[in-house]
Amino acid sequence: MADAAGQAILPHFRAPGLSADNKDAGGFDPVTVADRAAEAAMREILAVRRPQDAILGEEYGTQAGQSGLTWVLDPIDGTRGFLSGTPTWGVLIALSDETGPRMGLIDQPYTGERFRGGLGTARWQGPQGAAALQVRATDALEQAILFTTFPEIGSAAEQAAFRRVAGQVKLVRYGMDCYAYALLAAGQIDLVIEAGLQAYDIQAPIAVIEAAGGLVTDWQGGPVHDGGNALAAATPALHAAALALLGQAG
Amino acid sequence: MADAAGQAILPHFRAPGLSADNKDAGGFDPVTVADRAAEAAMREILAVRRPQDAILGEEYGTQAGQSGLTWVLDPIDGTRGFLSGTPTWGVLIALSDETGPRMGLIDQPYTGERFRGGLGTARWQGPQGAAALQVRATDALEQAILFTTFPEIGSAAEQAAFRRVAGQVKLVRYGMDCYAYALLAAGQIDLVIEAGLQAYDIQAPIAVIEAAGGLVTDWQGGPVHDGGNALAAATPALHAAALALLGQAG
Repeated sequence: MADAAGQAILPHFRAPGLSADNKDAGGFDPVTVADRAAEAAMREILAVRRPQDAILGEEYGTQAGQSGLTWVLDPIDGTRGFLSGTPTWGVLIALSDETGPRMGLIDQPYTGERFRGGLGTARWQGPQGAAALQVRATDALEQAILFTTFPEIGSAAEQAAFRRVAGQVKLVRYGMDCYAYALLAAGQIDLVIEAGLQAYDIQAPIAVIEAAGGLVTDWQGGPVHDGGNALAAATPALHAAALALLGQAG
Repeated sequence: MADAAGQAILPHFRAPGLSADNKDAGGFDPVTVADRAAEAAMREILAVRRPQDAILGEEYGTQAGQSGLTWVLDPIDGTRGFLSGTPTWGVLIALSDETGPRMGLIDQPYTGERFRGGLGTARWQGPQGAAALQVRATDALEQAILFTTFPEIGSAAEQAAFRRVAGQVKLVRYGMDCYAYALLAAGQIDLVIEAGLQAYDIQAPIAVIEAAGGLVTDWQGGPVHDGGNALAAATPALHAAALALLGQAG
């Protein structure tokens, strides 16, 4: 499915005159031909190979199933990065049951990188080789590298909460979309904090990061696989330290 | 030289336990073994092939020459991105005379992308192929995509100036370091605004963007090849519109 999605997307990446429909009148939410073609390609495979499973996709919504399993698809996570030509968008695929995601995949077709976790696997592969995915052991905020996509994260109160954590860490970086979760799973960074996510934005990252030894919850420490505000951390100690700051009154 | 730099750097990229010396006690300015090894590798080539030229490098400073030409080297532009595992740092190489950069190269060894401009060339090559570098024709701020590395750009007055431009454009993105200039030259984005640059940060981007048809100046419209605050734009109209906002009193 990731291969099919990548093949559908790459001819459109950095193509001249890429169109961006505006499906959300209230904001900038471009949807490209590539986005739709990739989800359609993945759904075609599921229709043949897994007709009994449900599907939740960003572009084409929900399809009911009978197996208790749901494929959760975001054909291009980071459409704004995609429209800007950055190589840090990704194809997100998760397989979930009633307890949450069991398996997830973060795929970057342009760089040829694939990060996969769950069902006994925690593995990264790319043009330079392959390796096990393993978070690193950072347990203090002052040693942590924190990523988020936008400095203007969520509401004013959510921004203030983010700033409390950002003020304590070694380094804050922006703009990586789902690629930040892959870097956390690969032991390169330590924290990702995002607000206002959809289920299809976060289910694959949850599975990949948990398989690599990390934690992903909402900003209250509860499950986040239905979407909302996410806190991903490399270690329990780091997660607890960030959670305490996110939860403080402004 | 870019090949040699890439070979020196890649074994250290995403390596476990990458060290980061702190050469600037006042801030976070990591310098890695890779950074130094890459500049040394480039200087070794110049010592043999171009002994008469001067060198200005980020890591090893200035070396005088007799030819009137200077090689301007930044072995890893975006060391903080490098330390975070993002594939958007780059090797910057420029060749300048007394008027400024004549040729420049932005190289991303991990993705295998190389952007080159000057001396009759404006060319991009990568794993998916090669193409001419050509900025796109965006001439209105409200259609422009703007990049900068940090939301906390420069002084308070500089931040305010940046915000005036950011408030007018279609989309603002962060965190790409020199890769943003490459995207502008490749016609993917329209504006890059940065503060506090060194000569070695901006000379290669100037040459690449000018060869692709764009403009790079300081925030007053003057030359920026000695460093400072940079405004890069795809078209003269867009450059003028951004310059007017940057120059307004707060």
